[in-house]
Amino acid sequence: MKKHNFAAGPSILSPYTIQHTAEGILDLDHSGLSVMEISHRSKEFMAIMDETQQLFRELLDIPSGYSVLLLQGGASMQFCMVPFNLLQKKAAYLDTGSWASKAIKEARFFGEVEVVASSKESNYSFIPKDYRIPEDADYFHITTNNTIYGTEIKEDMDCPVNLVADMSSDIFSRPLDVSKYALIYGGAQKNLAPAGVTFVILKDEILGKVDRAIPTMLDYRTHVEKESMFNTPPCVAIYAAMHTLRWYKQQGGVGAMYKLNLEKAAILYDEIDRNPLFVSGIPDKEDRSIMNVTFVMHQDYKELEADFLAFATERGMSGLKGHRSVGGFRASIYNAMPRASVEALIETMQAFAKRV
Amino acid sequence: MKKHNFAAGPSILSPYTIQHTAEGILDLDHSGLSVMEISHRSKEFMAIMDETQQLFRELLDIPSGYSVLLLQGGASMQFCMVPFNLLQKKAAYLDTGSWASKAIKEARFFGEVEVVASSKESNYSFIPKDYRIPEDADYFHITTNNTIYGTEIKEDMDCPVNLVADMSSDIFSRPLDVSKYALIYGGAQKNLAPAGVTFVILKDEILGKVDRAIPTMLDYRTHVEKESMFNTPPCVAIYAAMHTLRWYKQQGGVGAMYKLNLEKAAILYDEIDRNPLFVSGIPDKEDRSIMNVTFVMHQDYKELEADFLAFATERGMSGLKGHRSVGGFRASIYNAMPRASVEALIETMQAFAKRV
Repeated sequence: MKKHNFAAGPSILSPYTIQHTAEGILDLDHSGLSVMEISHRSKEFMAIMDETQQLFRELLDIPSGYSVLLLQGGASMQFCMVPFNLLQKKAAYLDTGSWASKAIKEARFFGEVEVVASSKESNYSFIPKDYRIPEDADYFHITTNNTIYGTEIKEDMDCPVNLVADMSSDIFSRPLDVSKYALIYGGAQKNLAPAGVTFVILKDEILGKVDRAIPTMLDYRTHVEKESMFNTPPCVAIYAAMHTLRWYKQQGGVGAMYKLNLEKAAILYDEIDRNPLFVSGIPDKEDRSIMNVTFVMHQDYKELEADFLAFATERGMSGLKGHRSVGGFRASIYNAMPRASVEALIETMQAFAKRV
Repeated sequence: MKKHNFAAGPSILSPYTIQHTAEGILDLDHSGLSVMEISHRSKEFMAIMDETQQLFRELLDIPSGYSVLLLQGGASMQFCMVPFNLLQKKAAYLDTGSWASKAIKEARFFGEVEVVASSKESNYSFIPKDYRIPEDADYFHITTNNTIYGTEIKEDMDCPVNLVADMSSDIFSRPLDVSKYALIYGGAQKNLAPAGVTFVILKDEILGKVDRAIPTMLDYRTHVEKESMFNTPPCVAIYAAMHTLRWYKQQGGVGAMYKLNLEKAAILYDEIDRNPLFVSGIPDKEDRSIMNVTFVMHQDYKELEADFLAFATERGMSGLKGHRSVGGFRASIYNAMPRASVEALIETMQAFAKRV
């Protein structure tokens, strides 16, 4: 039986992506070869790479002057590549969670880092609002969606310096104004593909401004120039990504995904706010993520946490346990999560409340 | 119709690997979830990671005191990580081809590099033999198999300093004495898995000897300590690798693969040496790779090159065109290549000769 997969990442992918990737593994478009064993220089794979990059451009309405890179190493490698390529003297970071904090740690290998604000003392339960971005910073770095805590920056901000965003867990969840960003990056394993491919969308003109020597593989210019084919790319993950993007297009694009995401998040947050057993992890509604919905048992029912998890598991739900640093529950409701699965979770919460 | 896949990489994988990977993509061991969408912290994936590393240890007889890492970025990222972690003052490199030369280029970002010998002037058609390894080098780097040219270092050498080997294209092709190496690395896309996972086998005691600060993701100690789970690993590629290694074990291990590899290489080189139409790319038999067999048309038949490729393609062969820097043909006959496919190629060469 297919599970309702609420895991935070790697996480749910559409049946379309899963089915087509399995077919390509057995035989890529009747070529007599698996997508795992075709040359990355073959015309078959070049077409996959081209279409994937083109769908990024189309679905996110990426302006000219930007490159789309498909690399390896995850967002964690970008924590190091961003400052390697962009930090000449000073960078500004917003500390909204554990991943933001890891990005800050890496930037400090390369220069001065000003953390403009942090919600760490509140266990990252809100997005800081009042801060000043230093105008002498080489860039300002944000994490738009904080997977562990369930907070999200849901608007494309105006920024006086180059804006760099880790969008690992909310890319493709809403329409973006890419022109407001200098660089957007993320791991694929939420709204795109299995783990193993990392996307980078960057404005070409920001490169080449630092003095330091950059090893070839860590230099964005290498991958811009070679169109992400400097070395063998992660072909299977890119093939899966292409199918996810085709599916988004068939569903009506990112605008349609956004509408569905708003609906799914709204009905789930409504239930959490309404159901006396549960409390949202994020008090400020404005900051609540539409991708990762965190909630805990109301303090009067704390001892029922394990029971609720077991009850949900019996009903075919998977991945609902909250991150250890937050506790409680987390329902990750990425693009591929059908509304019916969110409704099944809501029914489960209601059925559990009736038993108590 | 299934092709005879002679591609150099990404390259042939066993039907066992292909079939099981496709099944895991649809439904991982009846879990109701795809291997693309399960959490890397789930017990299901932890078991996959553990078994893969354990099979590395078992099949290569890796001594204690060594770690097995499964990373991202390909051998190209290792060209940078090796000197980042190991080059304090000076490193020695053997220049046996284009990939060796790329590794040398990256090492120069980090310190002095002594190239002890090079066959570049002969278009890398042999493995240099007479060279001295400087005893004050932090390490000596070799590329054991040169995929483009078809040369191979087929023995585990004694080395007065730490021996580092890029074994991207011949790992698991023969039994190894791992204890003679300080570090062995390679991309997966020849004898292991689809592109997207990179293995590193290293002696733990070589780490922590350089003064420089190393960004977290580029520091081997991060991945040793976190057992390759510091960030989300490339789960699908690792799952495929596990199946390849299970298959090697079922076939009798690396010793059995080696016996088969020697036989496949011998019958193909014999045909090249015997057939008046063809000439081996590697005059010195001792240097001939058992993984990548390069050959060209005899000079009297140069104009038949395209005809032979077309003739072989008609007979279901794929990936036989030689690398542009060498020309002619290259038959990559990795572990997963059945003897029957090599025999089919030999018959094709003979049938073509009869037509001339």
